[in-house]
Amino acid sequence: MVVATIGMLSSSSLHSGTRFLNNHSSISYIYRSSFCSNFHSHSSFRLNRSTNSIDRINKNCINPICTVSASTKMASPFKAEDARIPPAIPLPTPPISKFKIALCQLYVTSDKDRNVAHARETIEEAARKGAQLILLPEIWNSPYSNDSFPVYAEEIDANKSPSTAMLSEVSRRLKITIIGGSIPERSGDRLYNTCCVFGTDGKLKTKHRKIHLFDIDIPGQMTFKESKTLTAGETPTIVDTDVGRIGIGICYDIRFQELATIYAARGAHLICYPGAFNMTTGPLHWELLQRARAADCQLYVATCSPARDSNSSYVAWGHSTLVGPFGEVIATTEHDEAIVISEIDYSLIEQIRTFLPFQRQRRGDLYQLVDVQRLNSTRTS
Amino acid sequence: MVVATIGMLSSSSLHSGTRFLNNHSSISYIYRSSFCSNFHSHSSFRLNRSTNSIDRINKNCINPICTVSASTKMASPFKAEDARIPPAIPLPTPPISKFKIALCQLYVTSDKDRNVAHARETIEEAARKGAQLILLPEIWNSPYSNDSFPVYAEEIDANKSPSTAMLSEVSRRLKITIIGGSIPERSGDRLYNTCCVFGTDGKLKTKHRKIHLFDIDIPGQMTFKESKTLTAGETPTIVDTDVGRIGIGICYDIRFQELATIYAARGAHLICYPGAFNMTTGPLHWELLQRARAADCQLYVATCSPARDSNSSYVAWGHSTLVGPFGEVIATTEHDEAIVISEIDYSLIEQIRTFLPFQRQRRGDLYQLVDVQRLNSTRTS
Repeated sequence: MVVATIGMLSSSSLHSGTRFLNNHSSISYIYRSSFCSNFHSHSSFRLNRSTNSIDRINKNCINPICTVSASTKMASPFKAEDARIPPAIPLPTPPISKFKIALCQLYVTSDKDRNVAHARETIEEAARKGAQLILLPEIWNSPYSNDSFPVYAEEIDANKSPSTAMLSEVSRRLKITIIGGSIPERSGDRLYNTCCVFGTDGKLKTKHRKIHLFDIDIPGQMTFKESKTLTAGETPTIVDTDVGRIGIGICYDIRFQELATIYAARGAHLICYPGAFNMTTGPLHWELLQRARAADCQLYVATCSPARDSNSSYVAWGHSTLVGPFGEVIATTEHDEAIVISEIDYSLIEQIRTFLPFQRQRRGDLYQLVDVQRLNSTRTS
Repeated sequence: MVVATIGMLSSSSLHSGTRFLNNHSSISYIYRSSFCSNFHSHSSFRLNRSTNSIDRINKNCINPICTVSASTKMASPFKAEDARIPPAIPLPTPPISKFKIALCQLYVTSDKDRNVAHARETIEEAARKGAQLILLPEIWNSPYSNDSFPVYAEEIDANKSPSTAMLSEVSRRLKITIIGGSIPERSGDRLYNTCCVFGTDGKLKTKHRKIHLFDIDIPGQMTFKESKTLTAGETPTIVDTDVGRIGIGICYDIRFQELATIYAARGAHLICYPGAFNMTTGPLHWELLQRARAADCQLYVATCSPARDSNSSYVAWGHSTLVGPFGEVIATTEHDEAIVISEIDYSLIEQIRTFLPFQRQRRGDLYQLVDVQRLNSTRTS
């Protein structure tokens, strides 16, 4: 398979990544040879900061990637590779193809110590059941409310975070990867809704701060303004782990299809969305958006919600779900506390993309999605 | 409402549009003052043909549109208007807000004369029931097969098309708008899968040639290569009608979210997709994709399939559906022949966009979707 041999990642090199996105508070490590060099040799683009325009420096097709883009009859004349700026990176070979993921749909209380201890126990239980990747809910150490965020927030960068200290300890001890849901983070005088990703060595691999804050107002049903207390993150987050290349979004981030699409173009196998949809938008949109992102991007999507607490000021929908690259629901649950354990098989991604080759049939002559920071990185890397 | 007063279309000017997309075989009329002039005064972009780069000429915020973009707390610093290049056009006020649409899920045979007569009768019945907009299925005058396309194809531009002649006659006589599903079109030595849109005066308003050809191969389940016989269209198609601004896609076009997104950015109220999903992809993706496009773009989506013929070489899924701007299924049917009649209320679009304002919360600093032809048109209009 051409796709499998381009952009191959060796497991030993996964953690020797290059700092990819500069000048942002969030850190995303990307393996250089499979990521940056591919699009460097494919095409070169430059975002001109002074004019904010996009300059294509050259477009010499000098490597075998082009034969992939041109392999269907209709894609060739329409330059499908131009539909992504920079062009999409072929799917990297993950260090592991099949493994178990656990979605820990936790009941969250106002007692932070209890929440942290309970999350630890649940992660341990999931690991005993064979999970190598654990996903936690959005805001699992605190009630989900603007009143609570400042009170429960922890300083992650300053190592004053009992919640993430627990995740670090348990991931190292159990040799598992943890996408740590999210917690309120304090950084200077700002608060963020932040997801921490821990590798099997217990190290913080990356941190995603919710990019799109949840500000909605449906009169009589649901009003919430995260922006009252929180600051939005500044960067998409994609990370290479022992269980594949993973893009991170938090809850409302899932509504922005461009984010999922640029993760797919960066070679993600899986997008994880800790989220807490509510009783208004949950029934109609929660599963719809997960399935749409998975089917459109032809990759895995995993979500994890807090369990429903009908007495809470914000009642979560629950229904943590794993969706496969055909847009199919692989595993899900209702609204009570649960550990959803299911197998991920990354080989299905290539299979589905071969069956339905629309990633290579896009009309780059008609539309182009610009990944602004990846484009910028061609100047800084 | 700010949104309602910007980009207002007067009904008298709807048909005095300016030819918008030049140098393409398909014609799209766009009302100039609500469309071109808005993005001219908002920002100016230029696609440099020699370098294929995007140049932003200036970005002076000189009109009230900017107050819309900056109206939420979080959108302002992140330049949501930059998420679309050129920036999204505010929703135009349609000539009519509430009206009935009919989705005519027709049983299609190998007898073209019968198909045309049957479509006429069905349209007349739908009009009697109050429909002001009629949507027909993909390939309704011919069997859906590569063997049939050359045999049933008609020369639309040369006025040698009994199928579209019928649509013209009936739309004029009944004073209805018809999105004419699609038929195989012969133009010179090429064949297209083409949708004709007729206004209430019986005139051909625009023609959409399927942009993304259906080339899939799921071994043992579904293999089809439209590109064996058909040529892909060269342009997105959006048209102002007496029942609003409508974007057109044909079947497989629905898989490409960028197309729906640029229609939304061009001010579409409704996207119509004549389509013939099959028994493999239909159950999993037909409704999913319609709902996803509607929910993500916050506009109406209507689809129309042929009725299912289990004896056909290509078995259509059926399930013609109208989806509202909240991603909700408003009306649908099973696989038998049917006329789905339902009310569209465009005022819901503004309502939903106010409740869930994510069209104004996009992160133009992180991703930008370029509408290549609209960008080009700033040079030619």
